[in-house]
Amino acid sequence: MNFKQLSQQYKDELLDRVLPFWLEKSQDKEYGGYFTCLDRDGRVFDTDKFIWMQGREVWMFSMLHNNIEPRPEWLECARQGGEFLKKYGHDGNLNWYFSLDRQGNPLVEPYNIFSYTFATMAFGQLSKATGSQEYADIARRTFDIILSKVDNPKGKWNKLHPGTRNLKGFALPMILCNLALEIEHLLDEDFLRSTIDTCVSEVMDVFRRPELGGLIVENLNSDNSLIDCFEGRQITPGHAIEAMWFIMDLGERLGRPELIEEAKNTALLMAEYGWDKEFGGLFYFMDRNGNPPQQLEWDQKLWWVHIETLIAMIKGYRLTGDSRCLEWFERVHNYTWEHFRDKEHPEWFGYLNRRGEVLLPLKGGKWKGCFHVPRGLYQVWQTLEKIQKEENEKYASIATTN
Amino acid sequence: MNFKQLSQQYKDELLDRVLPFWLEKSQDKEYGGYFTCLDRDGRVFDTDKFIWMQGREVWMFSMLHNNIEPRPEWLECARQGGEFLKKYGHDGNLNWYFSLDRQGNPLVEPYNIFSYTFATMAFGQLSKATGSQEYADIARRTFDIILSKVDNPKGKWNKLHPGTRNLKGFALPMILCNLALEIEHLLDEDFLRSTIDTCVSEVMDVFRRPELGGLIVENLNSDNSLIDCFEGRQITPGHAIEAMWFIMDLGERLGRPELIEEAKNTALLMAEYGWDKEFGGLFYFMDRNGNPPQQLEWDQKLWWVHIETLIAMIKGYRLTGDSRCLEWFERVHNYTWEHFRDKEHPEWFGYLNRRGEVLLPLKGGKWKGCFHVPRGLYQVWQTLEKIQKEENEKYASIATTN
Repeated sequence: MNFKQLSQQYKDELLDRVLPFWLEKSQDKEYGGYFTCLDRDGRVFDTDKFIWMQGREVWMFSMLHNNIEPRPEWLECARQGGEFLKKYGHDGNLNWYFSLDRQGNPLVEPYNIFSYTFATMAFGQLSKATGSQEYADIARRTFDIILSKVDNPKGKWNKLHPGTRNLKGFALPMILCNLALEIEHLLDEDFLRSTIDTCVSEVMDVFRRPELGGLIVENLNSDNSLIDCFEGRQITPGHAIEAMWFIMDLGERLGRPELIEEAKNTALLMAEYGWDKEFGGLFYFMDRNGNPPQQLEWDQKLWWVHIETLIAMIKGYRLTGDSRCLEWFERVHNYTWEHFRDKEHPEWFGYLNRRGEVLLPLKGGKWKGCFHVPRGLYQVWQTLEKIQKEENEKYASIATTN
Repeated sequence: MNFKQLSQQYKDELLDRVLPFWLEKSQDKEYGGYFTCLDRDGRVFDTDKFIWMQGREVWMFSMLHNNIEPRPEWLECARQGGEFLKKYGHDGNLNWYFSLDRQGNPLVEPYNIFSYTFATMAFGQLSKATGSQEYADIARRTFDIILSKVDNPKGKWNKLHPGTRNLKGFALPMILCNLALEIEHLLDEDFLRSTIDTCVSEVMDVFRRPELGGLIVENLNSDNSLIDCFEGRQITPGHAIEAMWFIMDLGERLGRPELIEEAKNTALLMAEYGWDKEFGGLFYFMDRNGNPPQQLEWDQKLWWVHIETLIAMIKGYRLTGDSRCLEWFERVHNYTWEHFRDKEHPEWFGYLNRRGEVLLPLKGGKWKGCFHVPRGLYQVWQTLEKIQKEENEKYASIATTN
């Protein structure tokens, strides 16, 4: 693989095609915040505002401003979305709604913990970009609320009858692995370390199951045992693989190579398990006993699943040198660029059927916004740059030694 | 079409293949109630008990016992399921849970109004089959609870923020059209008439939209106006078509031929609108503005959609003589028997992809039980018998006149 050329390809796609699409098409110049329901060419087909998507776009443009270069249009895009979120996204006590109408009136109540996690990410990066203490406080206080809700994230909207079957989900500890690093500038080191240790242990020692050969399951009994019900049999390959690059980032941050090695092996295992041998691509949902999953969309090919796999594989290769990671990166790269990328209009398709044909022509919707595509392009680009830099340094050092 | 042969085909499929499947495979002889998660050959792959499915199977076997012939094994199957439901299905005050574990412990709280409607149907028919006043009381009292919850069916589990966007759904008035006739033996005539009038008017004058050429939408503003949001743009052809045979039944019961005519025309319109011109079959979900629907399973072909269309078309033909109904019946009959019927094992597949290939091999699951297939076979069989009888009477009368 030509890393230099590949790195340029990811960079150009990000800066020249994807980011301009969101800057131009998604900003609501009248009421603030972002439209995310965008048709193939960027036409707005629905004006509701979903808090996950609002928070993610604030995060994205702040992060780019912080990490690539300080472009005023990126900062302004993030800032106006942050102001909209601050004003309308919560009930006044940082209980984050799930969705708002275009004007910012609440539509769906704060039942969804991931509205909180994406708000934390948003204001964490925005505080870095602006130096604003107000934004930093919102991020930190929301993070504390998340931790306080770990045992019953849905609150009074939880429909599970208490006592019969208490499940715990993979999603929250998994996302906290990422979130902790996102706002590490707002946490003291001891608290950061202990939060990270807990989450890493949940992900790697609890949801990763030796009796299943190391597969990661989505739900467990609250006593950490496997359970034979729809939720307990569910495997979501893309979700587990995404978590593995969070873990690799943590492994690098904490200087724990054995953790990186385990995460890399798990990512490889989940990719092998989730790959559709007939049509290519990774399945969305699977059942660990081979039973019919409850999700009718189980066999569809989703953009984020594939993009997160690209990130995990290229990071795995960089951090461990395992050639299987590079093979998987190439396989998924070819599938992704061939099937998800829209050759005629900017941004990528999100939803393909099992055969890899476009199922919905949208570029954004209730669940797809300015997030996985640009984050993935950024992460792969940056990792490819590091690989080249590290290879150059190696050669330089060999040359010097010789 | 050879009605005699066709009628025999539906009857044999019901009595020789489908009902024995459920009698043998679904009954939980140890704890009572029914398994509904059944693989292609009837293997139980999950033991949770979903109240919709429990109620529907009690209804089915009671109804068959009442309407075909009093077979002891049908009555016993219905009765044991009814006892399980009576004992475990609700909280003691007829608040019906959504699901239970195998033993009957509540899993999901009573947030779903259709648990109540299927419980009403179940105990309505079971009271007829057994003469039990206790069952009759359960049906009647549950029906009253449904009527009292019409304005907020989800109760405290409703996640919509009050005041911003108050929607009303098609599903409840639609199902009440059917439910009222199901328990008419328990209602006094005035109450029955006024309930029916309200529901018919909601379905035909409110959710059926002249400005959309007579299409039926799934959700409206509470002031009965159209609304441009995901829910408000949703069209579910199978749901609307199912409602149309409920309306035809009511039209016959009330002696209102103009209502039958309208329902028949609406069923034809919805079938034309929902038909997949490329691969055949009826789509599951559509957007009335042609935007991407929010349901990823939108293009799948579901058994109940097609079976309900068979019922509507054959009833429409019988009651109005419109030859287009017969053409549609034939088209959907061919599609259904070719794609949904399993040639190797009894009962039918439920979930096909857009191309009509089997997506999930199950015969029953969380949402598919002993209901649409046997009810549809029964309804079509009975309607075909009536058509033959009425044709014979017509010829006999012509012969006499000559």
